[in-house]
Amino acid sequence: MDTPYDSRPIGIFDSGVGGLTVLKELIAAFPHEHFIYLGDTARVPYGAKSVRTVERYTIQVANFLIQRNVKGLIAACNTASALGLGALRAHCETPVLGVIQPGCQKALAEMKSRSGHIGIIGTRSTIASGAYPNTLALLKPALKVSSLACPLFVPLVEEGWINHGATRLIVEENLAPFLKDPVDILILGCTHYPVLKPIIAQVLGPRTQLIDSAEAVVEALEKLMNQLLLPTQPDAKQRVDFYVTDVADRFQEVAGRFLGEIAVDRVEMVDL
Amino acid sequence: MDTPYDSRPIGIFDSGVGGLTVLKELIAAFPHEHFIYLGDTARVPYGAKSVRTVERYTIQVANFLIQRNVKGLIAACNTASALGLGALRAHCETPVLGVIQPGCQKALAEMKSRSGHIGIIGTRSTIASGAYPNTLALLKPALKVSSLACPLFVPLVEEGWINHGATRLIVEENLAPFLKDPVDILILGCTHYPVLKPIIAQVLGPRTQLIDSAEAVVEALEKLMNQLLLPTQPDAKQRVDFYVTDVADRFQEVAGRFLGEIAVDRVEMVDL
Repeated sequence: MDTPYDSRPIGIFDSGVGGLTVLKELIAAFPHEHFIYLGDTARVPYGAKSVRTVERYTIQVANFLIQRNVKGLIAACNTASALGLGALRAHCETPVLGVIQPGCQKALAEMKSRSGHIGIIGTRSTIASGAYPNTLALLKPALKVSSLACPLFVPLVEEGWINHGATRLIVEENLAPFLKDPVDILILGCTHYPVLKPIIAQVLGPRTQLIDSAEAVVEALEKLMNQLLLPTQPDAKQRVDFYVTDVADRFQEVAGRFLGEIAVDRVEMVDL
Repeated sequence: MDTPYDSRPIGIFDSGVGGLTVLKELIAAFPHEHFIYLGDTARVPYGAKSVRTVERYTIQVANFLIQRNVKGLIAACNTASALGLGALRAHCETPVLGVIQPGCQKALAEMKSRSGHIGIIGTRSTIASGAYPNTLALLKPALKVSSLACPLFVPLVEEGWINHGATRLIVEENLAPFLKDPVDILILGCTHYPVLKPIIAQVLGPRTQLIDSAEAVVEALEKLMNQLLLPTQPDAKQRVDFYVTDVADRFQEVAGRFLGEIAVDRVEMVDL
């Protein structure tokens, strides 16, 4: 190809709706690209599942997108990024972007002092994988890093319990170790968590800066666009296709909480 | 066969660990039977999934047990019973027992007056299916029945948040309609909910009697044993085999919360 453009779509996948926080940022940042989003809503959540199972599911959802001729794949799910990305990269030639490395790079870029304490919150499986501390250690050794699993945050967000006393209590109790030993930077290591940003910020106070992996992925994709991928024609009309593995109705309802004003007109159901 | 005995196992399945509340009662009530428990932990929870997906998963888990030569099948999961049992009965010859009908029969047996108000709580999909009110209406027309979905109860139980202020707040808010318009009988229409019985009883007060489907299933199985199934030899040693579709470690940990003193020595992982 001599053209500097590539009109093929970019595939984004998640265990369910959480990845829509990433998609929202991508839609805003890349107004001419064609995105295909696949939410594995039949098998959601991935957050307490094993490496073996998450690897298997990650490859299945990626295969669906690869068959749709995507030019790049974005794992917009921290658990899939933490547990499934190695297997996925071994499985396909398509460039794959996860959320762990962009999140870690953004956290380090924001670090003011070398002595800073970085906190990570995520699902049970993401935290157990050690993916965040391992990646941080590769990028900058001898950091102080603390991780906490917050397994109830996902169901609270999925059910829309955002401004509830109960949610505040659960956030306070889960993050208590970060009140005793404060963190300067907290990586929101699950795509559902940005929805709880206001409560988390209240509980931890202004000392802690929150890093949202959705924003970090946009920066990483911009870099990837300059290196490995070609953009679409500059006059191309943006397009977003939605696919789910279980019924679409509830996806459309919950998607509204994540995408805000972006309309989800049509969602197609597929078997993997 | 002229022998009045049948040494084949009884298969019990659930989307995950919730069915262990049923298994616990069965172990106590049938001290000579061989039980095979299968928890579909790779795809748990079923509670927000569609009829189509729950039917598909129910038939897959049942097939695994049928291949192990079970004499009967127990769907120890309200969502699978509410959404998948019709399809499962059409699919196989093995007698199948769900938890909906036994729960309804027990509720009606406990009803003191004809004017009583029956409440049902369950997952989003169980409540949306209407399985409980439909079954109650068949058994006794013109009852006053009210249903409430309590989707956060399952994650709270799975994560062991049993005696927390946050859990109390969530239970209070979810059950608020039953404080305004009290129910005489409340069917706990999800196998996880008996773990929250103490809090639910506190919130609703002594006026409301709680019906636990696990206990109801024991009575139903006793009837089935007299009709369709034969028991094992009276000198047979009880045996329980555990299978899961995702890693066994966490199952063993959580199983303790459900089974109490019954030991879960060995859990085997299978792909469906």
